[in-house]
Amino acid sequence: MKKFTFILTRPQMAENIGAAARAMANFGLASLRLVAPRDGWPNDDALPMASGGFDYLDDVQVFDTLGEALADCHISFATTARPRDMQKEVYRPKQALDYCAQTMTEDARIAIVFGAERTGLTNEEIALCHAIIEAPTAPEFSSLNLAQCVLMMAYEIASQGPRAVVQSPLTPAPQNEFESFFSRLIEALELHGFFKEPHLRPKIERNLRTLFLRPNHSTQELNSLHGIISALTRNSR
Amino acid sequence: MKKFTFILTRPQMAENIGAAARAMANFGLASLRLVAPRDGWPNDDALPMASGGFDYLDDVQVFDTLGEALADCHISFATTARPRDMQKEVYRPKQALDYCAQTMTEDARIAIVFGAERTGLTNEEIALCHAIIEAPTAPEFSSLNLAQCVLMMAYEIASQGPRAVVQSPLTPAPQNEFESFFSRLIEALELHGFFKEPHLRPKIERNLRTLFLRPNHSTQELNSLHGIISALTRNSR
Repeated sequence: MKKFTFILTRPQMAENIGAAARAMANFGLASLRLVAPRDGWPNDDALPMASGGFDYLDDVQVFDTLGEALADCHISFATTARPRDMQKEVYRPKQALDYCAQTMTEDARIAIVFGAERTGLTNEEIALCHAIIEAPTAPEFSSLNLAQCVLMMAYEIASQGPRAVVQSPLTPAPQNEFESFFSRLIEALELHGFFKEPHLRPKIERNLRTLFLRPNHSTQELNSLHGIISALTRNSR
Repeated sequence: MKKFTFILTRPQMAENIGAAARAMANFGLASLRLVAPRDGWPNDDALPMASGGFDYLDDVQVFDTLGEALADCHISFATTARPRDMQKEVYRPKQALDYCAQTMTEDARIAIVFGAERTGLTNEEIALCHAIIEAPTAPEFSSLNLAQCVLMMAYEIASQGPRAVVQSPLTPAPQNEFESFFSRLIEALELHGFFKEPHLRPKIERNLRTLFLRPNHSTQELNSLHGIISALTRNSR
């Protein structure tokens, strides 16, 4: 599986490093690197916001420069909300991951680079990265909190993985089960004088079919509907 | 456009309401509702974490119960990391939004419901919603911070909208511009004795073509490559 490494460059608040660690652990990511953290590392101020997230991460690696942190990475993306006067490809998070899926081998290390809280990434830091990831933020209020940006990328990575889709607990019943319910319904309605004007019946039946077929009921739900018919039939006697 | 309403049920920390507001504003969402906020509303403690985000939101609406907050919504999703013993459809964020895109009209109001920080949503609250949204979190560390969960959903909504894709600033050059560069390259290489063994030349040319064609260079980049050839040609004299 591709290795994602998140790199926080010159992070100021240890609390944000903790929140970033929690977000990464939430989505099963383990590789966190820090470049020149302002208040040093390790730092106990990071622990409360991490909520235990560091337990699920590899040891945090600390580097003096972004260049060193990127040395063993095969591709790197600078996350920045600001368009720069620089000839680099700009991707949305999804697009960047699609690009990696299409072009990177499974043993590739993919770096996602985040800037300092107030100042973001410098042009020199961005220049070290292969491409830019820009969040689909509102133009008039585009500055994301650091840990929120980490969360966004971690979520998007997890959304491309094996947990991207859940199997709904409601497996729809096979069509024949629906048909046997539906014909019973029509029969019951007929028996109870529902179809007053014979020439309208085909259209009404069709509308009923649409109504009951659309939710793609499970076997259990169809059984419930059978139960309703049974009950109503009893009541009418 | 579909209206998304985010509902925070029984939020405890005003700071989290502020962080949620910032996350919503970051992604252009405006409708925030609170159900029985523990410390009342309005609350100045929410302002620092909002970083001015409230300026981009509609007035925050406060309700006593989730039922009242949902009254004018057409479909509602309970966000919860925990699978419950309840017959409700479970979606990933993307799936839920795809479902809405396929089934809801443009004037629909779609509610995303978030639980209290420690306890999440109660079974009674979940029962009020049409379906469940479960984040693709790591099973062993699945509890998201409230504002992070809000960020995730806001990001996913924005990712489905018109800002989902960026146009790369690097428009690839038309093929004929590539061909004129490439034939110049080959010519220059020939001139400089690059092709030592004639029988290998077709294969080497093919490999060079692959190498230069793949990045889908822009006109400007091709011009740079031309410049490189010019420079190298000068140097060799």
